Amino acid sequence: MSLGRIIIDDVRPCAPRGYPAKAVVGEAVRVSADIFKDGHDILAARVRWAPAPVPAAAGDRKWHTATMVELVNDRWEAVIEPAALGRHELVVEAWADAYATWRHKVTTKLAAAQDISVELEEGARLLEARAATAGREDKAFLRKLAKAMRNERDQPSERLAPAISERVADLLAGPDGDDDLTASAPVPLWVDRERALVGAWYELFPRSYGGLAGTAARLPAIAEMGFDVVYLPPIHPIGRTYRKGPNNTTGAGPNDPGSPWAIGGPEGGHTAIHPELGTYADFDALVQKADSLGMEMALDYALQCSPDHPWVTEHPEWFHHRPDGSIAYAENPPKKYQDIYPINFWPEEEADRQALWDACRDIIDFWIGHGVRIFRVDNPHTKPFAFWEWLIPGVQEQHADVLFLAEAFTRPKVMAKLAEVGFTQSYTYFTWRTQSLELREYLEELAHGPLADYMRPNFWPNTPDILSGPLRNGPPAAFKQRLVLAATMSPSYGIYSGYELCENAPASETNEEYDRSEKYEIKERDWDDPGSLAPFVAAVNDIRRRHPALHRLRSIHFHASANPSLIAYSKHTDDRSDVVLTVVNLDPWVVQETTLDLDLGLLGLPWDSPYDAYDELGGQAYRWTGSHPYVRLEPDQAAHILHLRRIR
Amino acid sequence: MSLGRIIIDDVRPCAPRGYPAKAVVGEAVRVSADIFKDGHDILAARVRWAPAPVPAAAGDRKWHTATMVELVNDRWEAVIEPAALGRHELVVEAWADAYATWRHKVTTKLAAAQDISVELEEGARLLEARAATAGREDKAFLRKLAKAMRNERDQPSERLAPAISERVADLLAGPDGDDDLTASAPVPLWVDRERALVGAWYELFPRSYGGLAGTAARLPAIAEMGFDVVYLPPIHPIGRTYRKGPNNTTGAGPNDPGSPWAIGGPEGGHTAIHPELGTYADFDALVQKADSLGMEMALDYALQCSPDHPWVTEHPEWFHHRPDGSIAYAENPPKKYQDIYPINFWPEEEADRQALWDACRDIIDFWIGHGVRIFRVDNPHTKPFAFWEWLIPGVQEQHADVLFLAEAFTRPKVMAKLAEVGFTQSYTYFTWRTQSLELREYLEELAHGPLADYMRPNFWPNTPDILSGPLRNGPPAAFKQRLVLAATMSPSYGIYSGYELCENAPASETNEEYDRSEKYEIKERDWDDPGSLAPFVAAVNDIRRRHPALHRLRSIHFHASANPSLIAYSKHTDDRSDVVLTVVNLDPWVVQETTLDLDLGLLGLPWDSPYDAYDELGGQAYRWTGSHPYVRLEPDQAAHILHLRRIR
Repeated sequence: MSLGRIIIDDVRPCAPRGYPAKAVVGEAVRVSADIFKDGHDILAARVRWAPAPVPAAAGDRKWHTATMVELVNDRWEAVIEPAALGRHELVVEAWADAYATWRHKVTTKLAAAQDISVELEEGARLLEARAATAGREDKAFLRKLAKAMRNERDQPSERLAPAISERVADLLAGPDGDDDLTASAPVPLWVDRERALVGAWYELFPRSYGGLAGTAARLPAIAEMGFDVVYLPPIHPIGRTYRKGPNNTTGAGPNDPGSPWAIGGPEGGHTAIHPELGTYADFDALVQKADSLGMEMALDYALQCSPDHPWVTEHPEWFHHRPDGSIAYAENPPKKYQDIYPINFWPEEEADRQALWDACRDIIDFWIGHGVRIFRVDNPHTKPFAFWEWLIPGVQEQHADVLFLAEAFTRPKVMAKLAEVGFTQSYTYFTWRTQSLELREYLEELAHGPLADYMRPNFWPNTPDILSGPLRNGPPAAFKQRLVLAATMSPSYGIYSGYELCENAPASETNEEYDRSEKYEIKERDWDDPGSLAPFVAAVNDIRRRHPALHRLRSIHFHASANPSLIAYSKHTDDRSDVVLTVVNLDPWVVQETTLDLDLGLLGLPWDSPYDAYDELGGQAYRWTGSHPYVRLEPDQAAHILHLRRIR
Repeated sequence: MSLGRIIIDDVRPCAPRGYPAKAVVGEAVRVSADIFKDGHDILAARVRWAPAPVPAAAGDRKWHTATMVELVNDRWEAVIEPAALGRHELVVEAWADAYATWRHKVTTKLAAAQDISVELEEGARLLEARAATAGREDKAFLRKLAKAMRNERDQPSERLAPAISERVADLLAGPDGDDDLTASAPVPLWVDRERALVGAWYELFPRSYGGLAGTAARLPAIAEMGFDVVYLPPIHPIGRTYRKGPNNTTGAGPNDPGSPWAIGGPEGGHTAIHPELGTYADFDALVQKADSLGMEMALDYALQCSPDHPWVTEHPEWFHHRPDGSIAYAENPPKKYQDIYPINFWPEEEADRQALWDACRDIIDFWIGHGVRIFRVDNPHTKPFAFWEWLIPGVQEQHADVLFLAEAFTRPKVMAKLAEVGFTQSYTYFTWRTQSLELREYLEELAHGPLADYMRPNFWPNTPDILSGPLRNGPPAAFKQRLVLAATMSPSYGIYSGYELCENAPASETNEEYDRSEKYEIKERDWDDPGSLAPFVAAVNDIRRRHPALHRLRSIHFHASANPSLIAYSKHTDDRSDVVLTVVNLDPWVVQETTLDLDLGLLGLPWDSPYDAYDELGGQAYRWTGSHPYVRLEPDQAAHILHLRRIR
C-alpha cells in the first residue's frame, strides 16, 4: 500500500506536473488541500514551508508552520507569507486529533446524560501521554489534571471541566510524534520579488530618442508618468542582408535602420550594442539612471539571427540548412522572413546542442552583468519548451531576482505551458478582449482558475506589433478606457510609447500593425502635445501605487451592470482595509449610464447605511447607500476608479 | 531537461494520482491528449495499448495502435476498444510529420507561384530516406519518384504531382524511427467485464424467502423482471449479544432474527452461513440456479463483527480496546451500536495488521471459491483507503472478473477517492436527487466531469436503509418515476425488493428508514398483488436490454423542457444507430405537459422532415417534426422511453 492513514490531495497552489507554483515575497498565499480520513476522527492539519534545501545542508532549513482550518467539503486552508526569494517547499501534514475527538465524544455523551467514566480514564491517559514530553510546569499541570479526572468523589462533570479548557486544548494540540502524521509530498513554490507580480511597464525604441543617452534623458518624464519598468526592444547591431524598409517592405534604402529584431551584424551579436545607440558605458548609465528614479530597465531576449550575425559563420551547426547548402530563413509559407534565421535548437550533435544552449545562457549572464534583471522574451513559443525548462531555473538558481516575461502570443495551451515550465509572467489575450462578457470570462479564468497558481498576466493595450480593437482610428477616450482596464485588472500592465499620444493609424484595414511602424523606422514625437494623455497615465499609475488592492489579481470580482457598455469590477485586500471599484465605459463614443448590482457583503460594506465612494480619477466624492448605485460616464471620462469606504 | 521535443499532456481517460482509469471489454474508449510543439511543424500522433506486462515477459506484449486525430485547441483523440480483461497500459506517441510539413510548404509555395526547386530536392531526400527501410516494391517506387522530382526537364508542378499522392502519404506516414518520437508515460487502464458497467440489480433478504433454497425458488420470477444481479445482505451467523429488535430497538426478543450486519456467532464468522438460511450446498445451488437464468449472485462484504464473532476471542488485537479492558463497540456519540464491534485496521504490531488484512482477503477468496464474482462492500468509507488500495487490485490480479460495489454513502471527495483507489462501482447521491435541475447537474458531473474516467455510478431508488423523496408515502407513480430515472440514466441501477410492491411507509416523519425495517425482522410479501409493478419493471429492463444506447453513461444529454416537472434526456450510440429519448414526469400527482427543445443535430435527426418517436414503454408511435415536440404525461404513466429514428 502507498497511501497514508489520512488522505491529503490536491495541495494548492500548484503548477501542473510538479513544476513550482509562483508567489512573491510578502504575498498572502492561500495554501489549501483536500484532507480526510475514513471514520469519524476529528482531524487537524498544518502546512510547513521552508526554502528548498541547499545540497548537503538540509538539516539547517528553517521551517515555518501555519495551522490549517477546515473550510467546506473536506477542503482545508492556511495563509502563509513567504519572506525570502527563491525555491520553497510546502508540506501539508495532517493527523487525527485524539484530544479533540475525545473532547467531542465526552461532551456529547455528558450532554446526553450518558456514563463517561471510561472516557474520563481515556482522557487522563491522553493528558499523561502528553505530559511525558511537556515542559516542567505543563507536565505538573497535566498530571494534576489527570489525577483529578480519576477522583471518584467528584461528579463526572466536575472532573471533566478543567480538562476541556482552552489551555489544555493548546497543550494537547499537535500530533503525538511523527508516527501519527501523514505528510504530503513536498510541493514546490517559487518566490519572486514583488516586481514579478506588480509593475507598470513602458516600452520604447531608444533609437527614436537619440540612442541610450537620449533615452536616459527621457527617463524622468517616464518616471513622472509612474512607470516601474522601461523595456527596450533589441539594442544590438542590425543585419544589412535583406534588411526591411518602411512598412515591412523588402529592399531597405541605405538610411533605413531596419528591424531591431534582425539581430547581429559585423559589429557583433546578442551581447553587442548597436553603435548608433551608444556604448556599454551609455547602457550602464541608463541602468543607473533608471535605478535612481525607482525604475528598472528590461531587455528583449530574441533568439534569432540576421544573416550577418557572427554565429552564422562561427556556428553554422546552430542553424537549419537546406539541400542547396543555404541556411534556412524564417518562413510561414507563403510568407518569407529573409532577414531572420531561426536557430536550430536541436543540432545533430549533442555537444553542439549543449554549446548553443550555453551560448544562449551566456547572453543572459552578460546582461545580468550589466545590471539587467528583467528579460522580455520574444516569441518563446517558437523555441523548445525543453530549452526554457532548462534556461530559466538555471538562471534563477544563480539570480533569484531575475524575471522573464513571455511574449506568448500563441495558443492557450502553449501559453499556459510556457508559464508552467518557468516564465515569470506572460503576455495575454487582453489585447483582443474588448467586450464586457469576454473581459469578464477571461479575468475569471486568469484569476480564479488553475492558471492563477502559476501564470501571471501582463496586460498590454498595445505593442509595436498590435494596434487592435477600439484603438484603431480610435479617439482618446478609447486609449483611456483600455489603459484603465489594463492597469486595474492586472497587477502588471504595460504600454508601448506613443500610446499616450493616441497614435491610432493602422497599417491597413485588415492589418493589425501600425502604419509606418517604428519597427522599421525612427519616429519623432511631440511629447509636449497638449492632447497627451501623460497626466491621465500618471494619475492612473498613482492610484495603482496607492491602492494595495490593485497589487493583486485574485480578489477581482465582477459586479452586475444593467448596461453591457459599462463594466464594473472590484478588488480588495484580505482585510477589506482597501476596496477599489472600477467602472469603465467600454463605448468611446457615447455617454453610458446604468445602475450596478454590488456584492456589498464581499466588499465589507454596509447594506443598511451609507458608505463613501471617492472617484480617485475624477476627484468626485459620492455617498452611496445600498447595492444599486447609479453611474454615468461620459466617453472622455472613460472610468471611475472608486475607493469605497465605510463612513468613519 | 526532462521534456521531450513534443509536449503530450493530460492523457485521458485517467484517474487522479496514477491509479488506473476504467473501461469494459468492447467499450469504445476515447483516448485523448493535449499534443503540441514549438514552431510550425505539422504533427502526427497515435495511441498504443496493450495488456500490462507480465513480469519477465514484457517483450511478448502485443501492442495495438490507433491513429489520433486533432480536434480543437491542441486536443487529439482516438477511439480504442479493449478486448481483454485486466490491467492495460496506454502510451500516446507524437512526432513531427516531416512529409506532411513538407507537403504543406511545397503546395502553398506552388500556389503562390514561388520557386520550389530546393523543396523538390528536400522532398526527394525524404522519399529516399523512407525508401531505405521500405519493402522491395515500395523501395523501387519511392526511388523512382525521387528521381523524377530531380528531373529538371519537367515543370516543378509535374515533378511534384506524384509525390503528393495518397500512396506516398501512406508510405511516409509514421515516425522515422524511435528517435523522432515523443512518448507519454504509460497510462494505466483497468478493463473489466461488461457487468462492471451495465447491470440491473435486485437486493433481497433470503430469510424472508425461506432461506437460500427459498431464494433459489424465487429466482425465476426475478429473472422474469429482467434483473442481472441478485445481491444478498450478509448471509452469515448473527450475534446474540445486544441483538437489535424490530425497528432498531434494543433488547431483542428470543425470536427476533437480528440484523444480518451484526456478523458472527458461535456458528462462525464471515465465511460461515447462518444455519437458518441453509448450507454451503444450498448456496452453491443458488449460484448455479442464478447462472442458469443468466443472472449472478452478489454478496455483501461487511467488515465488522458482532461481539460473538470468533475473531473477537481469537484475535482481540484486531479490535479497539477501552481502558476498562472492554472492546469498543461502534459509536457516533450520542448514538451507540452495541451489537457491532468495528475492526481496528491498524493494530500496533505490523504482523497483526498483515494477519488481519490477509484474513479479510481470505473472506473474499473463500466466496470466490463458491462462485461469487461480485461483492457489494458495506460502508467502505469507515475502513482505511490504504486497505482498499491493497485489497482490490490484489484480488483482481488473481481474478480479473471480480467486481466491487462501494456502498459509499459519504462525502463527495471520500466517494470519489474510493473509486480512485479501485472500486468498480459506487452507490451515489441519486437517491436524494429528485428535482430536474439537481438531477441534471449531478448527471453532468458523473458523465462529463473527471469522475467519468474512473467512477461508475450505480443508481438505487431505494435501499433497506433509505426510503426517500417522493417514495415516502408515495403513490405507485412515484415508484415508476424513480425506477425509470435510475434505469435509463445509469447503466447500472438496482432496487431493494418490495419496491415493486410500492412499500412506502417510513419509520417516522424524520427518519429515512423503513417502518418495520426488514433489517430487523422477517417480511412476508404477496408477490401476486395485482398492483405489483413487476410487469412495469420487466418492461423497463427489457427496454434497457434491447437498447445499446442505454448501456453507456457518457452520451447522456439533457434537452430543455419548458416545464421543470418534466425532465428530458437522451442517450445515443456513437454511430446514432440507437437513439433513446426519455421523458419523465417528476410529479407523481398531477398530469404535466410541455414542449421540449431537442438538439436534433446531436441526435442525428433531420430538422426539416419528420422522424419517428416510438414510446417503448407505452407502445405509442408518434411522428414528430422539428425540435419542439409536445409531450404530456399522466402521473401514472410516469415516463416515455422513446426510440427516435429517421424514417426509412
